[in-house]
Amino acid sequence: MGLLAANLISSACCFVPLPPPSPLRFQAKRSSQRVLKAALTSSEKMDSGGQAAPVSKLMEFPHLTAAHTDLMLYLIQTVENGLGDHLLPSTVPTDVEYYENKNGTSQGTLLIRHGIPSSPIDFMIASWLHLKQPQGGAFNITNIAGYMKPSNDIPHFQFELVQCSPTFLIFFLDLLPRTDIILHPDYLTTYYEETGLEKLRQRLAALPEVSPYFSSSLYFRKVVSSTGILVGVKCEESESKRVEEIVREEIGPISKEVMRIWMELCLNGGRELEEDERSLMEKRDLMIKRKAIEMDLSKSMPLQFGEEVANRVLQVIRSAFKTA
Amino acid sequence: MGLLAANLISSACCFVPLPPPSPLRFQAKRSSQRVLKAALTSSEKMDSGGQAAPVSKLMEFPHLTAAHTDLMLYLIQTVENGLGDHLLPSTVPTDVEYYENKNGTSQGTLLIRHGIPSSPIDFMIASWLHLKQPQGGAFNITNIAGYMKPSNDIPHFQFELVQCSPTFLIFFLDLLPRTDIILHPDYLTTYYEETGLEKLRQRLAALPEVSPYFSSSLYFRKVVSSTGILVGVKCEESESKRVEEIVREEIGPISKEVMRIWMELCLNGGRELEEDERSLMEKRDLMIKRKAIEMDLSKSMPLQFGEEVANRVLQVIRSAFKTA
Repeated sequence: MGLLAANLISSACCFVPLPPPSPLRFQAKRSSQRVLKAALTSSEKMDSGGQAAPVSKLMEFPHLTAAHTDLMLYLIQTVENGLGDHLLPSTVPTDVEYYENKNGTSQGTLLIRHGIPSSPIDFMIASWLHLKQPQGGAFNITNIAGYMKPSNDIPHFQFELVQCSPTFLIFFLDLLPRTDIILHPDYLTTYYEETGLEKLRQRLAALPEVSPYFSSSLYFRKVVSSTGILVGVKCEESESKRVEEIVREEIGPISKEVMRIWMELCLNGGRELEEDERSLMEKRDLMIKRKAIEMDLSKSMPLQFGEEVANRVLQVIRSAFKTA
Repeated sequence: MGLLAANLISSACCFVPLPPPSPLRFQAKRSSQRVLKAALTSSEKMDSGGQAAPVSKLMEFPHLTAAHTDLMLYLIQTVENGLGDHLLPSTVPTDVEYYENKNGTSQGTLLIRHGIPSSPIDFMIASWLHLKQPQGGAFNITNIAGYMKPSNDIPHFQFELVQCSPTFLIFFLDLLPRTDIILHPDYLTTYYEETGLEKLRQRLAALPEVSPYFSSSLYFRKVVSSTGILVGVKCEESESKRVEEIVREEIGPISKEVMRIWMELCLNGGRELEEDERSLMEKRDLMIKRKAIEMDLSKSMPLQFGEEVANRVLQVIRSAFKTA
């Protein structure tokens, strides 16, 4: 569930003439598919030590463009290949893995996999949402995020791509800083300067169709890092192919590279924190997650999916976020 | 001396084809002028209790456009009228009040006035710089900043307007947050949401000539607030009148309103801090100032003005910033 998802979407509505909707996840259906089998290989292994866990659901992206789908599959596969050994199988209940509103026009999926005790990763969360808009059209939101444990200071990973219309995207890609940069400029050096993230931000910013996107939440503007990518991609009405080209040739390679950088940081394990640093980190992490849920998700989910479904989904997210 | 001045300028050089220069101040000349007399009235009073201190220097802006000059005079006058009673006379030595490079092509001015003991203001600093560029043309940088004491949490005021060419400006206007917003969202509510700063940012951002400006320093990107204005204003080569129009009709009114908001906060005195909060605030404030000097000013000043002049000016700034 994207940290900025609901907020991005509410804001997006001010941008394109559509009304406030809500969050997101991977589409999961009840049939099996080759790509998911591959993606679940190591969680099956972890689950039962030889005895395969049931392949529960399928990742499909029925509403996305080919470029967007390919990118999602690549990122999921990459997490699986690179960090699968770090992650336990998803324990999300079936009716939260996939959910929809009463008339089935809006759909959502959710996958959460916790890190094993020795991993620096607390959990990974992924989702897609298809949100039918009353005036026609739909928002398609896809998200992958990796949250770290408070025992290390590795930035959280955030990827979120929102197709608001065939010619307008919002894209958020960042490693979220976990400390007050003003007091800790060396954190900036280690995780942002030495990793070359700025080059990637600049590459995307140079495209004429791309412009900085300002979240409507002043709080989230401060959550984003110095090299965070938070942009709108807007093409002429006749140019939906150009949007797909930008996803395939720019957003895709940049996302893959940021994910690669983050995974490398995870595999190195990060810096071990002292007790007082750890408790501050925990407090800070919690504030960000709490803000995401209380300010955005808890308002937009019920509007989009009704109280009952929203409560069910939010309970699972709150439990993973430890904000319950 | 603008916090981001040197950095802005170094970055600006990547933007317009000009090489790395440095900082800024009010032009002060050795003759008297009506406008300065007015501006110095209350500092004269403070200085000697009845016996007027010598009117030392004059504020002129010989290199600026009329709109830019008018705005500077308005802002200085407004500080004088609204906060003059809070401020002691400037103690900047004459050869730092006004300085120039060997051949006199680059000039700078500096004015620093400390707050009286009962004021929440630590000091105000103002400056202009005229920096001749080797390839022709010049940068004109003007700056007014108000730094607060660590006994209160009122944001620092920052105004900086840089004319890089007749058709390109960089503009920085902000109330700098003095706490980690992630842990203290109520700080955001008090000083940024309730003051309506976002509306002002949006007003300027809506102009087609205006686009977000990314400082080359990843550190300073984190210093800026959520509603901070950091933009480039770029017009067609034939449109230098349009730049002046934007200064007069947009940048002017917005700057005046942000200054009014900040002065009101100062006059209310802000929240009194506990001892531990105060020491954290002091540490944070110091980091920002130190970064400004060590990363930027200490590199760019000697290049622009030579070692001797630069040392003289930097010593005065370091002493006010308490980073010496």
